[in-house]
Amino acid sequence: MKASELAAFLGGTLEGDDVDIIACAGLEEARSGDLSFCKDPKHVKLVQGTKASTVLLPHDWDKGAPCPIIRVQDPNRACMAAAKLFAPPEPVRAPGVHPSAVVDPSVKIGEGVHVGPLTVIEKGAEIGDGAVVDAQVFIGEGCKIGAKTHIYPQVTLREGTIVGRECIIHCGVRLGGDGYGFNNGRREDGSVYIEKIPQLGIVEIGDGVEIGSNTTIDRARIGRTYIGPMTKIDNLVQVGHNVKVKGYSGLIAQSGIAGSTEIGYGCLIWAQAGISGHIKIADGVQVGPQAGVPQSLDGSVKYVLGTPAESMRDFGARTLLPRMFSKLKSDVKEIKQKLR
Amino acid sequence: MKASELAAFLGGTLEGDDVDIIACAGLEEARSGDLSFCKDPKHVKLVQGTKASTVLLPHDWDKGAPCPIIRVQDPNRACMAAAKLFAPPEPVRAPGVHPSAVVDPSVKIGEGVHVGPLTVIEKGAEIGDGAVVDAQVFIGEGCKIGAKTHIYPQVTLREGTIVGRECIIHCGVRLGGDGYGFNNGRREDGSVYIEKIPQLGIVEIGDGVEIGSNTTIDRARIGRTYIGPMTKIDNLVQVGHNVKVKGYSGLIAQSGIAGSTEIGYGCLIWAQAGISGHIKIADGVQVGPQAGVPQSLDGSVKYVLGTPAESMRDFGARTLLPRMFSKLKSDVKEIKQKLR
Amino acid sequence: MKASELAAFLGGTLEGDDVDIIACAGLEEARSGDLSFCKDPKHVKLVQGTKASTVLLPHDWDKGAPCPIIRVQDPNRACMAAAKLFAPPEPVRAPGVHPSAVVDPSVKIGEGVHVGPLTVIEKGAEIGDGAVVDAQVFIGEGCKIGAKTHIYPQVTLREGTIVGRECIIHCGVRLGGDGYGFNNGRREDGSVYIEKIPQLGIVEIGDGVEIGSNTTIDRARIGRTYIGPMTKIDNLVQVGHNVKVKGYSGLIAQSGIAGSTEIGYGCLIWAQAGISGHIKIADGVQVGPQAGVPQSLDGSVKYVLGTPAESMRDFGARTLLPRMFSKLKSDVKEIKQKLR
Repeated sequence: MKASELAAFLGGTLEGDDVDIIACAGLEEARSGDLSFCKDPKHVKLVQGTKASTVLLPHDWDKGAPCPIIRVQDPNRACMAAAKLFAPPEPVRAPGVHPSAVVDPSVKIGEGVHVGPLTVIEKGAEIGDGAVVDAQVFIGEGCKIGAKTHIYPQVTLREGTIVGRECIIHCGVRLGGDGYGFNNGRREDGSVYIEKIPQLGIVEIGDGVEIGSNTTIDRARIGRTYIGPMTKIDNLVQVGHNVKVKGYSGLIAQSGIAGSTEIGYGCLIWAQAGISGHIKIADGVQVGPQAGVPQSLDGSVKYVLGTPAESMRDFGARTLLPRMFSKLKSDVKEIKQKLR
Repeated sequence: MKASELAAFLGGTLEGDDVDIIACAGLEEARSGDLSFCKDPKHVKLVQGTKASTVLLPHDWDKGAPCPIIRVQDPNRACMAAAKLFAPPEPVRAPGVHPSAVVDPSVKIGEGVHVGPLTVIEKGAEIGDGAVVDAQVFIGEGCKIGAKTHIYPQVTLREGTIVGRECIIHCGVRLGGDGYGFNNGRREDGSVYIEKIPQLGIVEIGDGVEIGSNTTIDRARIGRTYIGPMTKIDNLVQVGHNVKVKGYSGLIAQSGIAGSTEIGYGCLIWAQAGISGHIKIADGVQVGPQAGVPQSLDGSVKYVLGTPAESMRDFGARTLLPRMFSKLKSDVKEIKQKLR
Repeated sequence: MKASELAAFLGGTLEGDDVDIIACAGLEEARSGDLSFCKDPKHVKLVQGTKASTVLLPHDWDKGAPCPIIRVQDPNRACMAAAKLFAPPEPVRAPGVHPSAVVDPSVKIGEGVHVGPLTVIEKGAEIGDGAVVDAQVFIGEGCKIGAKTHIYPQVTLREGTIVGRECIIHCGVRLGGDGYGFNNGRREDGSVYIEKIPQLGIVEIGDGVEIGSNTTIDRARIGRTYIGPMTKIDNLVQVGHNVKVKGYSGLIAQSGIAGSTEIGYGCLIWAQAGISGHIKIADGVQVGPQAGVPQSLDGSVKYVLGTPAESMRDFGARTLLPRMFSKLKSDVKEIKQKLR
């Protein structure tokens, strides 16, 4: 696309050569052929150093640029609009079941549903109106998928899993695997046994939930592992059996929630954090990156960090100790010399 | 199912309305339609607050309940029995190879084996009697699967992988991927090279092993990466090349074992713990959640915590320091004032 | 294979019985039937304790062995050569598209390309000369795969993903999933909203990159998530949207890089480390296992450890504090007694 065409599309004014634009990118990542943007004069150095072929700038920009520019009202918004032009077109998922899919005759498929190639849907499952089930998905017996939910390729839903409306389940997600539960001990003859505890429950996902690639959510031992509405889960997250996430919470990449724990409304569990089993995290609490939470958090502290998790102040004190310690040590040395 | 029918099935006595029961759940998770249970009067508040439609209680319960109750001898056991009634029925995996599976003619398939739809089994593989290989599995050349082992959908076994008898391999497990090994350096002309070290070994899984969803176990550089009998591995665990887990151990979710490390019998590696390469963890040692183990543990300490891992006492001392430090600091201040 | 045949193949001399050899393994892992090796007399105890059936030893070895031996010039090199004999043969991936694959007619397939069974390739995709696309892979619309790249089974590439030449993408890798991005807030009526931010960019992988099993790399919000040439990524790694890894770096198992962060050339991010979003790691910096990096690292410290990440010296000081503290405490006690 020509820069001049972009300028026209965005309601802006081109200054400089009418170059070809093939993609959008931030100022630092941009290469030849990219359109970038800057709204704030304090980033002038990034503009000066960019390799973009054209930069979107505000009307009153007076710092120059190393390439053609397009002046617009709101460079951020204009770049988002342009980005949509250059984004890979969203694949069309037309209604219908691909002939290579293996769908049990008893499956109930709603209006306008797309079922992709080489997908397996077992008996008794129900797919709601307007749902998209992409290629190579496995949907086990008796699963229920809500209307307008999108299941990306190579997801597996074990038997009995329930997914709400307007959910997005990304590639490689595993819902309903057996929870981790064993009885161990020694028999009378002294030999060790490890017995599997049957995992008889299901996974239930509320409306508007998004689940990132390769995340795993185990079925309950009894009852349900529950992910409440509008919860947004990132990639490679582990959710144990019988966990209850009330809703409107975020679980960031590689975090893990052990069995039977309850996460309140509006919580944010940051990347690589771990939360022990059988505890409760109060509504609105944030657990910082890599934190480890061994016991319930009642909400009196809104943000915890560290292992074991503590308030920001305590965490800071602990991590700053070495420096404070050196000072104290020299104080003591001084005193001792005086006392001699 | 009617509460009265459940009472009859469980050998108990119904008190209150004969409501409909559709599932089981813990007292706190329970909703309308659920059966719950309580055996201990100390949880009376949970009983009073439950939303269950019926609660299983012991014969001598005298604290009341906000819903119909069924009195039984052992509420826990009764609830487990009831849970089985409401659990999603275990899918029947009848013997036979689904016509959509792509199975090489040279594959040896035992008696009573189930091979699901769209599964690929390559040449020379052997599937033991009574094994279940679910839908969309990939079994590479020359793999051997033991009798009665269950492989869930979308597992991949790279060439040469050996799995024992009565194992359970959950969705998305990757066995036999190349270990991470490269030679780096600079050529005489100063340029950098990174060369892949061939990964010539295999993965061997003992009898009775269970492996959770999306866990990855790499093939050995030479020889075998070995997971000994009755080891129970949770979801999203990483096991590096040439690791040896002797047996009867547990690796909890998101833990990682680096290459060539040996884990003794009866160890427990808790969630998100990390264990360095080329070390040994003695029999029976437990590594706490998020711990990082840089060197061998000889078993003189049975439970380690923290990074670098240390005894519970040392870990406690370190995390309690800020508080102890404040006290000491004020002591020093006092002394200094006296000395002036 | 007979030990004598092996000796002849390796140009060595057999001493002892001509036993059967079926595999290679390290001295400690070896079992009956295995060939092992030792070049250094300081490992004589491992040789004495090995269960290998034959050991490769240097010509001047005079410490004996509990089994037949083969004397060779260089035992390490000889064992590597022998290991290749016993390794599972690399599966042949002959050129051609398996009839069960679902490949859109518009897909451009190069010379000598292998496409395995039950793989899906959507419209507009391009597969370079000599590439291997194994079974059950999903390649979305408009993806481009470079020449001689190998994609293992059950990988998914969402639409628009670009992979360079001579890359290796292991089982279960997810490229191009939506980045994690939401706008949250409260509406005027006080109700909470969580809106998905469209993820309009792509993932671009440079030449010679290797990506381990079940690793996830998200598509950019705008522009590209970029993994530069010769980067080697291990299993279960998370790479957020708009991350830029310049090249020649290693990301070890279960590490995570949050959105928009830049990793310089020649960096090494060790296992389970986490790196915050929107920061820069300078060329050549190493981030230790389980470290957490909250802010940019300019390269003045070459190796960081701990959370928050610090130099080795500071990390050591912090983890050694409890011991140093005890000493200081008793000093203070002594002083106080003197002052009384």
